[in-house]
Amino acid sequence: MHSSPAMDRLVKSLKRLPGIGEKSAARLAYHLLSAPDGHVAELSEAIGRLKTDTVVCATCFNLSDRNPCSICADDRRDRALLCVVEEPADLASVESSGGFHGLYHVLGGALSPIDGMGPENLRIEELAARVERGGVTEVILATNPTVEGEATAYYLIDMLQPVGVKLTRIAHGVPLGGELEYVDGSTLAHALSGRRTVD
Amino acid sequence: MHSSPAMDRLVKSLKRLPGIGEKSAARLAYHLLSAPDGHVAELSEAIGRLKTDTVVCATCFNLSDRNPCSICADDRRDRALLCVVEEPADLASVESSGGFHGLYHVLGGALSPIDGMGPENLRIEELAARVERGGVTEVILATNPTVEGEATAYYLIDMLQPVGVKLTRIAHGVPLGGELEYVDGSTLAHALSGRRTVD
Repeated sequence: MHSSPAMDRLVKSLKRLPGIGEKSAARLAYHLLSAPDGHVAELSEAIGRLKTDTVVCATCFNLSDRNPCSICADDRRDRALLCVVEEPADLASVESSGGFHGLYHVLGGALSPIDGMGPENLRIEELAARVERGGVTEVILATNPTVEGEATAYYLIDMLQPVGVKLTRIAHGVPLGGELEYVDGSTLAHALSGRRTVD
Repeated sequence: MHSSPAMDRLVKSLKRLPGIGEKSAARLAYHLLSAPDGHVAELSEAIGRLKTDTVVCATCFNLSDRNPCSICADDRRDRALLCVVEEPADLASVESSGGFHGLYHVLGGALSPIDGMGPENLRIEELAARVERGGVTEVILATNPTVEGEATAYYLIDMLQPVGVKLTRIAHGVPLGGELEYVDGSTLAHALSGRRTVD
């Protein structure tokens, strides 16, 4: 029971969000009550229009405001390079790193039999079709370094190897700026087994 | 740069909320994108209507959907007991504890000269008027156990003592379920100096 029905309603709605419990929801609601009217209206509208203003690109399955998305439609991008990621959020991370200028393919998740995620639930068939259509010389498998992500990468390797396209996996190792002392054992083992000769 | 302008707009709006940074904002936005339409619409509406549907009670300054608020208007509450709190959120906490059946007075903050919060910025005059109007036999000072809250409590004691009303301060001590080992020194000192004889 909070101060007013309007507060109760907002707290109830906010509590549905991931990582937001009763206390944080109340704190956010009280903050919004004293926030500038413009900010509150903007937030309400941004949430309300999120779904209607967002479309899925039919080529790469990234989220965009148009189809094809601005990346697929960009003539300056290298169409021979295809970076495969699990989710749109991963694409956004790769994109903001500024280290990639090819095209993307968003799978929509990773293989996880325990959660009922099989190849048919992901955009894997669409990936195969894109690669078989030709023009792609290298597929970079940038699925997450998790059990599911690795399994997905190996599934895609099995599937794409017969096509004759070059397959690469993003490097796993010690993150830049990280200290060896605080890096977990499996990452360190990966970093050691993946060591390179210094020229 | 996120996936679509609609996402960017939402992330920008969410980032203005306290305790929500770029990463959490993006996570919330992606969650909302895949959440049921009804939930998203509800949240958008709850935020949009929060301010218009919330009024401040002219008697106790609590937030409500009507004036006087449901607590002030409730005949079953003990009108001789007045609990003074800093914020509506504090009132909600006391109320949900179920341990109080009197009326409230929300100050709207605590005295804090460094932040420019003087007695004229709080509902202190209104509190004096309520007490002087008569009918109140005890004022419970439930401001926070912080420097500002304590200063406010002492200010109110100075102001209300001449009126001849009984003044009490909520007990400070070791929280229930807490272990002495993990309780901070000042709380423990408070708990010791406020010890009671066991009958």
